[in-house]
Order: sequence, then structure tokens, then C-alpha cells
Amino acid sequence: MPRYKLLVEYDGTPFVGWQRQDNGASVQAVMEAAAAKLSGQTVAVYAAGRTDAGVHATGQVAHLDLAKDYPADTVRDALNYHMGANPVAVVTAEQVGDDFHARFSATGRSYLYRILNRRSPPALDKHRVLWVPVALDADAMHAAAQRLLGHHDFSTFRARECQAQSPMKTLDLLRVTRQGDEIRIIAEARSFLHHQVRNMVGTLQQVGLGKWSPDDVTRALEARDRKAGGPTAKADGLYLTGVRY
Amino acid sequence: MPRYKLLVEYDGTPFVGWQRQDNGASVQAVMEAAAAKLSGQTVAVYAAGRTDAGVHATGQVAHLDLAKDYPADTVRDALNYHMGANPVAVVTAEQVGDDFHARFSATGRSYLYRILNRRSPPALDKHRVLWVPVALDADAMHAAAQRLLGHHDFSTFRARECQAQSPMKTLDLLRVTRQGDEIRIIAEARSFLHHQVRNMVGTLQQVGLGKWSPDDVTRALEARDRKAGGPTAKADGLYLTGVRY
Repeated sequence: MPRYKLLVEYDGTPFVGWQRQDNGASVQAVMEAAAAKLSGQTVAVYAAGRTDAGVHATGQVAHLDLAKDYPADTVRDALNYHMGANPVAVVTAEQVGDDFHARFSATGRSYLYRILNRRSPPALDKHRVLWVPVALDADAMHAAAQRLLGHHDFSTFRARECQAQSPMKTLDLLRVTRQGDEIRIIAEARSFLHHQVRNMVGTLQQVGLGKWSPDDVTRALEARDRKAGGPTAKADGLYLTGVRY
Repeated sequence: MPRYKLLVEYDGTPFVGWQRQDNGASVQAVMEAAAAKLSGQTVAVYAAGRTDAGVHATGQVAHLDLAKDYPADTVRDALNYHMGANPVAVVTAEQVGDDFHARFSATGRSYLYRILNRRSPPALDKHRVLWVPVALDADAMHAAAQRLLGHHDFSTFRARECQAQSPMKTLDLLRVTRQGDEIRIIAEARSFLHHQVRNMVGTLQQVGLGKWSPDDVTRALEARDRKAGGPTAKADGLYLTGVRY
């Protein structure tokens, strides 16, 4: 059975998340339905990142096996055709060996978090950014973010529902920059705990508001306790932008 | 009556356009309803560009008169509050003299047209770009665009419903650039005829596809006949980005 690696883009707004669930439409279900129409059989689609409800992707990677050997471009076009009006697009498809697994072969994930930091709410970027009407100090947020780099127990930033076996993760990059009214936070690691990026962003937001110092962030990290961290930032601003193999 | 100049952003997707109409929600009606809630009186809101159905704005300028002298920031915040879930935002407000008129004082308008030029459809940018799955030659489009610069009779690019007294306009800038999968077309002029930007884009698209040469564009312009031009490009990709005074 030939295996295909897919680069996938989606608007997370209408979905309960990547993963198939009983309580609403998921990106996985949309893709699996399209793959079933193409192949005439039940097809499982696996993704590198099981994004939450409302989280977007510009660089999700998924894979699937098809019974028939189609050209990769045909797979891309057929899936896009069958996904119809759903805001999910297969940007590229390529045939890969059956040792490739979108999730287990991944060696790095990149996320972007967008904050619209201005007095007036977003119009064009509604559901695409977190709106913070109070001025945030992006430089202070960046300085505090550097306290989280490296290999740590990230329990402070871990959702209760997280299924990872260990809270130990290595954070490679957490960069905060301002571009006009927008604050962009880039996070890179081999993998993340459930809600880790959103919980780190919520904590950095306290720094941006002047309520927390970089030392407070270090203390929160060292507490290894979710209650010591800031609130979970909304899903709206989060994008899975890339997966490394 | 104090007059306020407003910088306005909106997602044009759900609207019949800027102008109040009987057949659906307009940006003007949303803003006038919010202004009426603020002032307790009927308020007229005038805009620099009467954008069509589906056309977006990041830099629309409007003005209104209020019976009471509010601080400009209060006007901005109150309008945003009263517009609620509508995808319209007042980005800035400032008090201006009563000789200022958003439409009649304007000396320049800038538009951006976005084309997503890739095989797969847009997911995150649905209704925000024109999707063209066939490869377009942006350099050829730019070269042909230069044939339209200057003072001309633009009847070839004028909608039948256009209410302008004359088809003579001066096009100051028409720049086509590619940024990855996206082609961006920037158009600047003192003012434009109805559908002029979309009709020019539709014509340049013929050049990008290799069907028309720059000379064909010159011939189309010189024909002064709408039937000699290319099709009208969809509203989805068009943004009013700025107004000069």
C-alpha cells in the first residue's frame, strides 16, 4: 500500500480540533471522508500535531495509505476536490516509504501565536488572532520567554488532560517580536505538552502587562504546578506552522 | 456639530458593500446603527470608497457628525462596542474641521488585490484571495500593467453601472509582485471608476496566463469599450488599503 505525506493547511475555527470526536466536525474526519471517496475504502489519516479546537495550521503534516498507486498530485487534487467547502487544503502531497509516520517520525514542531495588540478589535482577522486591547511590552515578554528555553519539567504549562508520559520537554525557541499592532510568538521544540504553547503565551501575557517579572516566570516554571502558571491563551491565535523530519 | 474622521477596517464577505441597500447588510448601515446608539439621534456616515459586495478594507476612511462633543477615543470605543459581532472595526478616530469630507476631500486611494496562485485552494484565506490554480507569470503581468499608467479614458475597465461623470482617470501606480504562492497587485489613483481595479486585474490575469500580450492590453485600453477588456475579477481578493488627503 503506497503511503503519502501531505502538507495540510486549515482554518481551525469550525472544528473541534484535528482529532475525530463525537461532539463535532474534526479536520481528521473531513480528510478521512475525502480519502474514502478517493479510494472507495476506509482510510486512516495520521497527523504530526493533534491541534485543539479552534487552532489553525499552515504547516500540518499528515500521512495516509492508499490501496492503489496514484500519482501524488492526483492524491492532492482529489482530496481537495472531495473536501469541498471545508476550510482544509492539501498544499502538497508526495509518496514516501512505509517507515514514514507523520507523528512518530517528526523531530520538530513550530507554532506561531498571533496577538492583535490595539485598542480596536480585529475585523478581518477575527478568530485568527488573540485580541488584547491593553498595551503589551513585547520586549519584556521576549526577555521572560528566554527563561523557558532548554530541557525542563514543564508541568506548570501542561493541561490536566495531557496524555504525554513525561512532563520533560526541550524548548528550542520562544521568540516574541512586535510588528506594528501585532505581537508574534514563535515556539519550536521536538514536541510540546498539551496546551503548552497556549499556557506559555498566557504566562508571557502577564509579563507583557507588567504584572509579572522574568523572575516570576522562572519561579512559575520551577513550581512544576499548573496553578503557578498564567491562564491558557485562546486557541484563536495559534497556528501549527511546520513539522521537521 | 463636531466632525470625526475614522479609519475603518472590515471583512467585506457578509456585506452587500459599503453603501446602504435594501437587499442586505451594508457596512454603512452597521456603522450608522452604532453611531445612532452612541448619539441617540440619526447619524449619516460617509466613506471615501463605496466598496462593492465582498470587497474588504484595511484603510477605509469615513466621517460623521455628532451632536455632542465626545473625546475621539470615546467615539472609536463606543462605535466598536455598538458594532458588536459585526466584522467592522474603527481603528482610529480623530476630530476634524467641518471642511473635511471623507469622500470629497480625498486626493488618493490605494487598493490591494491578492491572488493565491497555487494548485490547492485557500483554507485560511478563503474569501480573502482570488484562487487561480493555473500558473501566472507575475513579471509579464507587471510589464503589461505599466501600459495602463497615466491619464486615459478607462471605459474598457468601467462597469456599466458606473456613475462617474467622465471615464477619464489618472492611474498613478499598478504594481504586480509575487511573494511565494501569492501575487499582489497594488493600484493607486486619485479615484477609480466602478469596478476599475477588478476589471484591470481580470485583464492582467489574461496576460499572466499567456493569452494576452502587453500590446493586447494597450489595444484593449485604446478600444474604450468594456467588451475589449478581460473579465471582472472576483471581489474576494480586493482590499481598500488607504486614502490620502
